[in-house]
Amino acid sequence: MSKFQLTILGTSAALPAYGRHLSSQILAVDNELYMIDCGEGTQFQLLKYRIKKQKIDHIFISHLHGDHIFGLIGFIMTLGLGDRKKPLHIYSPEQRLEELIMMQCGHEAGFDIIFHVTDPTQHQLVFESKKVAVYAIPLTHRVPCNGYLFVEKDKLPNIIAAKIKQYEIPYTEIPAIKAGADFETVNGMTIPHQELVTPAAKARKFAYCSDTMYREENSSLLQNVNLVYHEATFLHEMLANAERTMHTTALQAGQLAQKAGVKKMIIGHFSARYTDLEPLLVEARSAYEAVDLAEEGKVISIE
Amino acid sequence: MSKFQLTILGTSAALPAYGRHLSSQILAVDNELYMIDCGEGTQFQLLKYRIKKQKIDHIFISHLHGDHIFGLIGFIMTLGLGDRKKPLHIYSPEQRLEELIMMQCGHEAGFDIIFHVTDPTQHQLVFESKKVAVYAIPLTHRVPCNGYLFVEKDKLPNIIAAKIKQYEIPYTEIPAIKAGADFETVNGMTIPHQELVTPAAKARKFAYCSDTMYREENSSLLQNVNLVYHEATFLHEMLANAERTMHTTALQAGQLAQKAGVKKMIIGHFSARYTDLEPLLVEARSAYEAVDLAEEGKVISIE
Repeated sequence: MSKFQLTILGTSAALPAYGRHLSSQILAVDNELYMIDCGEGTQFQLLKYRIKKQKIDHIFISHLHGDHIFGLIGFIMTLGLGDRKKPLHIYSPEQRLEELIMMQCGHEAGFDIIFHVTDPTQHQLVFESKKVAVYAIPLTHRVPCNGYLFVEKDKLPNIIAAKIKQYEIPYTEIPAIKAGADFETVNGMTIPHQELVTPAAKARKFAYCSDTMYREENSSLLQNVNLVYHEATFLHEMLANAERTMHTTALQAGQLAQKAGVKKMIIGHFSARYTDLEPLLVEARSAYEAVDLAEEGKVISIE
Repeated sequence: MSKFQLTILGTSAALPAYGRHLSSQILAVDNELYMIDCGEGTQFQLLKYRIKKQKIDHIFISHLHGDHIFGLIGFIMTLGLGDRKKPLHIYSPEQRLEELIMMQCGHEAGFDIIFHVTDPTQHQLVFESKKVAVYAIPLTHRVPCNGYLFVEKDKLPNIIAAKIKQYEIPYTEIPAIKAGADFETVNGMTIPHQELVTPAAKARKFAYCSDTMYREENSSLLQNVNLVYHEATFLHEMLANAERTMHTTALQAGQLAQKAGVKKMIIGHFSARYTDLEPLLVEARSAYEAVDLAEEGKVISIE
């Protein structure tokens, strides 16, 4: 099975605390690396976890708060010092990110930076490669903000090796069969497509939701998603604070996971007030069992 | 003796490498903390070495290359989240730093940021407190750049405790004696100032010189300085590269230390091409013995 793997580089909200770093994640889809958010120090975390920075061609930014973007300028300069020539694409819900980056380092980078503006109010496609489609997910925060949903492209079914032998199927016919065709043997017998293949693996999905207030309406977008990263900045006893600053509590994150029936939720973006994160986990799990704490550097394979 | 102590937070040039971080240093003069340069990740280094960030009221920036300033925005936001109210002063040789900072985070910080522009062509006073005077040192780099010389303020002599007892000197007279006055006893005998005090400790000096080409003319400014931090980005075999990019070689740094007769030089700002720094040290020491490699987190007390 091809790779669909998440590495979380930072789990701290607003400022670094207790060894926790600022928001950034890497999703590996086979040999493609996608970065989501880029807080200060992200390039140090890439070094630490031996992630090949020059393989990153697309960065998806959720919103323009410093703890999600202040690592961009250093990362871009470092890419340029590595003699990069291929372009870098940056997606974000605000046009002014282009101005911010270009005035600081964009013109010296030595490669093109292409900015794309997402609509933070719409669930819409923002990028697709042969392997993955990326959609914006509307979020509600103090500034325009959207999450991202990564969906593996529809996979083709696998042909059964024994059938190739049995019906003497030439290799040149295989692409057509995988794409849905029946096969006609040399004796003129038609073998139906269904007999020749095992069904395609189901497309895997990963969603990133940070920063945001609790949005129950997002549960439909997150239906059956394999892995959801969701912010859980506060314990529910701080609900008033969460509402004022437009963040989610651990309990609310668990409730959303439950409503959406996600396969697994990982909570992160923890307030610096929490040394011990266990109470956040306990609280989220009180609503939904399949919740874990985000852990920096841990590679999560989505099966 | 009061504190005059340097902590180096980053020793890497341009980009992080082999666990080396980007340029930043903290000079502690008694209970005053001064920051010099602020590369990306400086706030993480402050946390790591348990340096009290809110005690920093003055940041001296050498030049506007990213590896010396990209940590400013995150550091400022973090100061603000700590509910800071007192102003922060930032010194740099380019006016546009104000625009860069203010458009990214300055207006949200919650405290005043006061920008001061230095003249990178002049050796001039840029700041003084009761304890220290800070001068710009002209440097030659690809953009306007100056170093900084920290000079302890002239100290007053110490009064000898035994003399206070012997001549029954009232405490109210001590400030005048320290400032140079003789003392008249109740019997009308004049005790000369010199008999009452031990000489003042000599003012200590620290100089920061990064980034720059070799500038022999700076040896006069650095005469007898207690501690000089000087960049030594390359080995001398890379002289052409050093000249093109306007950096100093380790040999040149040693030669400057020798010409200036500095008490101690520490070299840093190492190119990411060097895993092993020993050859840089050997080369600098071939010109002047009192050279060491900068070491992150090590506290150097200047006596």
